Amino acid sequence: MRDMGLVVVGAAGRMGLELVRAVHEAQGARVVGAIEREGSPAIGKDIGELAGLGPSGVMVSDDPLAAFASADGVLDFTMPAASIAFAGYAAQARIVHVLGTTGLSAKDDAAIAAAARHATIVKSGNMSLGVNLLALLVEQAARALSAKDFDIEVLEMHHRNKVDAPSGTALLLGQAAAAGRGIELAGNDVRVRDGYTGARETGSIGFATLRGGSVPGDHSVILAGNGETITLSHHAQDRAIFARGAVKAALWARGRKPGLFSMRDVLGL
Amino acid sequence: MRDMGLVVVGAAGRMGLELVRAVHEAQGARVVGAIEREGSPAIGKDIGELAGLGPSGVMVSDDPLAAFASADGVLDFTMPAASIAFAGYAAQARIVHVLGTTGLSAKDDAAIAAAARHATIVKSGNMSLGVNLLALLVEQAARALSAKDFDIEVLEMHHRNKVDAPSGTALLLGQAAAAGRGIELAGNDVRVRDGYTGARETGSIGFATLRGGSVPGDHSVILAGNGETITLSHHAQDRAIFARGAVKAALWARGRKPGLFSMRDVLGL
Amino acid sequence: MRDMGLVVVGAAGRMGLELVRAVHEAQGARVVGAIEREGSPAIGKDIGELAGLGPSGVMVSDDPLAAFASADGVLDFTMPAASIAFAGYAAQARIVHVLGTTGLSAKDDAAIAAAARHATIVKSGNMSLGVNLLALLVEQAARALSAKDFDIEVLEMHHRNKVDAPSGTALLLGQAAAAGRGIELAGNDVRVRDGYTGARETGSIGFATLRGGSVPGDHSVILAGNGETITLSHHAQDRAIFARGAVKAALWARGRKPGLFSMRDVLGL
Amino acid sequence: MRDMGLVVVGAAGRMGLELVRAVHEAQGARVVGAIEREGSPAIGKDIGELAGLGPSGVMVSDDPLAAFASADGVLDFTMPAASIAFAGYAAQARIVHVLGTTGLSAKDDAAIAAAARHATIVKSGNMSLGVNLLALLVEQAARALSAKDFDIEVLEMHHRNKVDAPSGTALLLGQAAAAGRGIELAGNDVRVRDGYTGARETGSIGFATLRGGSVPGDHSVILAGNGETITLSHHAQDRAIFARGAVKAALWARGRKPGLFSMRDVLGL
Repeated sequence: MRDMGLVVVGAAGRMGLELVRAVHEAQGARVVGAIEREGSPAIGKDIGELAGLGPSGVMVSDDPLAAFASADGVLDFTMPAASIAFAGYAAQARIVHVLGTTGLSAKDDAAIAAAARHATIVKSGNMSLGVNLLALLVEQAARALSAKDFDIEVLEMHHRNKVDAPSGTALLLGQAAAAGRGIELAGNDVRVRDGYTGARETGSIGFATLRGGSVPGDHSVILAGNGETITLSHHAQDRAIFARGAVKAALWARGRKPGLFSMRDVLGL
Repeated sequence: MRDMGLVVVGAAGRMGLELVRAVHEAQGARVVGAIEREGSPAIGKDIGELAGLGPSGVMVSDDPLAAFASADGVLDFTMPAASIAFAGYAAQARIVHVLGTTGLSAKDDAAIAAAARHATIVKSGNMSLGVNLLALLVEQAARALSAKDFDIEVLEMHHRNKVDAPSGTALLLGQAAAAGRGIELAGNDVRVRDGYTGARETGSIGFATLRGGSVPGDHSVILAGNGETITLSHHAQDRAIFARGAVKAALWARGRKPGLFSMRDVLGL
Repeated sequence: MRDMGLVVVGAAGRMGLELVRAVHEAQGARVVGAIEREGSPAIGKDIGELAGLGPSGVMVSDDPLAAFASADGVLDFTMPAASIAFAGYAAQARIVHVLGTTGLSAKDDAAIAAAARHATIVKSGNMSLGVNLLALLVEQAARALSAKDFDIEVLEMHHRNKVDAPSGTALLLGQAAAAGRGIELAGNDVRVRDGYTGARETGSIGFATLRGGSVPGDHSVILAGNGETITLSHHAQDRAIFARGAVKAALWARGRKPGLFSMRDVLGL
Repeated sequence: MRDMGLVVVGAAGRMGLELVRAVHEAQGARVVGAIEREGSPAIGKDIGELAGLGPSGVMVSDDPLAAFASADGVLDFTMPAASIAFAGYAAQARIVHVLGTTGLSAKDDAAIAAAARHATIVKSGNMSLGVNLLALLVEQAARALSAKDFDIEVLEMHHRNKVDAPSGTALLLGQAAAAGRGIELAGNDVRVRDGYTGARETGSIGFATLRGGSVPGDHSVILAGNGETITLSHHAQDRAIFARGAVKAALWARGRKPGLFSMRDVLGL
C-alpha cells in the first residue's frame, strides 16, 4: 500500500511544524500539502525547510480545496472557524479529518457531526495516546473502587508560564473519574485547600496544582484507600506527542467509513 | 439482613489475627469461628483478646467441621494441604471459601476446582483490591499501546528482609503486561542489567528491584514511549490490606451460586 | 555503660505508648518511669502491658519529681503548660529533656530557654530524623539554585481526616526554602491556584495539598528549573518515627552539658 | 561589563550546537569563536545558522589559537586528546576553560592540572547544576543517616538506546553516598538482584536500572529507614541542561585566578 497522503493545515505555526515533523518520522504517511491562511509570509516556501527537515518539494499554499482533492487526510490543530470550513472540505473530498482544535462550541460540534456523514473524522481535545489511555484507566479504576473506600485526587504540574489552573487535561481526568463514579464533576470537585478545611468529604474529587520551571505537563490521579494507594500518571516530555497521536489517528482512520470517532476508538478500547 | 458469619482458619497466626481485625472493622460481617491446628496453645482462648480487640465470646477451636456448619463463609490464608481440606469442608457446608493461600500445585488447583462445584470459592495469590485492579489496568494498557511504541518496565521496592527478587506481585504485573501484549512473560523478561547491555530489545519486559528499610511493598509498571511515559503504581501501607480484601471477597460471594471466582470478579471488571 | 533510664510523660496517651514502644525496641535505653496526670485511670497500671509489650515492672504514676530524680532523661509530647513544668523538673534533676510538644508560645519558649541552663533540652516541632534532614537539604538547595533559575513548590499528602492545610511540616519545609533564599515565607507563599492565575511569580514558594485514604504523611519539595527538576521527598510509613527520633535525641543528649538543642544538632549537620 | 566572549570547540557536533544555543539564550555571554577539526564540512559556515539561530557573523574555523587569543573562555565537550590540547591553548591565552569531556585518563588529568596553573579550568563529568547539587545533598544525607538505620538505593531510568548500566551519573551518585558513609563504593555496591538474594546487607548500596522510551535521564537516591523514606531525585527534560551548566560555569569562572575547579565550586557549596 502506498503511503497515506496528508495535508497539514496551519502548517507554518508551531503546532503545524510539529505535525509536519511527526508525519516525516512516521511510517506509512507523507506530507502532500501544507496550507496557511491567505497572506501568510510562509506561502510559497518549502514546508520541509520551514520544519528543519530539508527540501520536501511541498510548497505552502492558501488553497485547501486543491490540496484536499488529491489527499487521503488532513491534520488540523487550528481555530474553530477554520476547522468547520476544513471539515466541510474533507466531507466533499470524502477523506480523513483529524481534528485537534480546542474551544469548539455546541454549534461547531453540530457542524462537525454533519460533516462526519461524509468525512471520517477523529476529534479529541488531547491527541496524546497516553493521556487518552490514562483517562480510560481512571474511569475504570473509579468505577471499581467505591467512593466509600477510595478518595480520588488529581495532581498536575506545568511550566511557570501557564496562566490557568487546573489544566484542561486535569479536568478531563477528573471528569473521567466522575464518570466512573456515576456523578457530575461540577459540585463534587474541591479546587482549593487552605487553612481550616475540615475532614475530606466522601465522594469528592480533589485537585492540586504545581507550577514551575519548563515542565511540559505531568498529571497524576491518586486513588487513596485504607492502607493502600493507586497512582495513575502521565508524563509528557515535549509537545511532539500531540502531533504523533494525530498521525496515529490518521493512519487508523484510513479506509474506514465516514463517522465521528475519538482517540478511544483509535486506542481500540 | 443479618451479618455474614465468618470462620477464620489459622486464626492465631499473624495473618489470621489480621483477618479477625479486618472482619471486626467491616460492616456486615462478624467472626463466628476461629480455627487452629490440634495442639496449638491458642486453643480455648478468646480470639478477640488474641487480636487485641477485647473479649468476643468466640474461642479458638480445632474442630473446623462444627464451625463451618453454622457459618456463611471461611477466610483462609494457611498452607496448601490445609486449604484443600478446608475447601472440602466448605463444599460440604455449601458456604463461601475465600482462599488466599499461596504455593498451590496443579493438583491442589484441581481439588479446589472440584470443591467449587458446591462451595463458592474466591481464590487469589494477592487479595489486595488495589493490586488486582492494577493488574487489570496494566493488561489493558499493554494491549492498547503497541510494543513498537511503548516499552514496559516493572519496578518494585520491599523491606530489607525480603529474600527473593522480583516479588511475586511484580511477576503477576509482568504477566498481566505480557497477557495484554499476547506474549509469554517467560523468554521476554529482562531480569538483570549490568555493564554493557546493548540497546533495549523491542517487546521485552524489564524488571528492577529495590530493597531497603521497612517498605511493605511498592510496585510500578512504566510504559515508556517516544516523548511520553505512563506509570501505574500501587503503594501498600501495611499488610492489613490483604485481610480487608479477603473480607470484601467474602461479602461479595455471599448468596452467589457455587463456582470458582477471582478478585477480578469481586472488582466487577 | 548501663542503659539510659527514661521517663515517659503522658505515658498512657497514643503518643506516650509509641514512646514506650520506641524505647523498648532501642538499644541503650529503657523505661524507668511513666507519668500521667492525677486521676488518670492508667495510674497504677503496668506501662509495658498498656503498650502491648508484656509486664515491665514500671507502674504509671502521677509523681514526676520522684520519677525524674532517678532518671537520665524524659520524653515529652504533651501540652505546653505541662511541658513547662516538666522542663523545670528536668532542670532541677539536671537531666535530658526531649521536647516534642507543639503549640508553644513565645513565653513558653522563654521558660524553656531558662530551664536549659540546667537541663539538656532537645526541642523540635517534628522529631523525625528524616524530616529534619530534609529541611536542611531543602535550605541548601534553595541557597544553591537561584530564584531566577529555579521555582520552589511544596507538595504534601495526608489522610482524609486531617482538618488543616498545608501541614505544619509543609510549612516547616517552606520556611527552610525561604531561609535558603534569604527571604520571609510570609508574603512569598502561594497557597491557592484556581482559575486564571497568571504566570508564576519569580521567587514565590507554592504549596499544594492532597488529602485521601490513610496516608500518614508524604512531603515533597520540588525545585523546577529550565530543563531539569530536583525533588526532595519524605515518606512516613507510620507515626512511630516521631517516637524513634525522640529516643535517638535522648541518647545523643546523654552526658552533654546543659543547653537548648534541635534535631539538627542530633543529626550532626 | 561587556559580555563574556566564548569559543565553542567541536562546535558543529550535537553537543557543540547545544552549547551555541545555550550561550545565545544566556545573559552576559556571546559566541566569539566556533572551532571544528581540520577538514570538517562545517568550516566556513555561519555557526548561528547551523544552530538554527539565524546569521551570527561567527564562521566555523579550524584555528583555535587565533580564536582563543581574542576570547574570555572556551566551552569544550570533545574528546580527551583534543581537550588536552585546548587546555594548553587556554593556559597560553590565560582564559577560562570549561571542560565537560569524559573518559579522561589519569595522565590526561595530570596534563589538565598542569594547564590549570595558567588557565581557570572548571571540569566535571556532568555539567548539570541539578545533578551536582544532588550529589552533594546525597553525600550529606548519607553522612547524617547511619548505615545501621538507613539503606541506600540508587535508581535510574534512561531511553531504550542506552547501552550500558548503571549510568555514569548513577555511579557518581553512588560514590557520593559512599563518600558520605566513609566507605568505598567498590565492594559495597549491589548491581544485580534476581532469584534468591537473601536479606539486604547492612551498609551496601544498591543499584536498579530502568530502560525505555526516550527518557533523557531520571535519577533517584532512596534512603530507606524503619518507618520512613527519603528520596532525592533529579529529572532531566533534555540535554540542553548540560550546555546551560557549562555556560553558568564559564560566567562564574570569569575574572577568577587560574586553578582547577568543579561544579561544586560553581554552586558555591
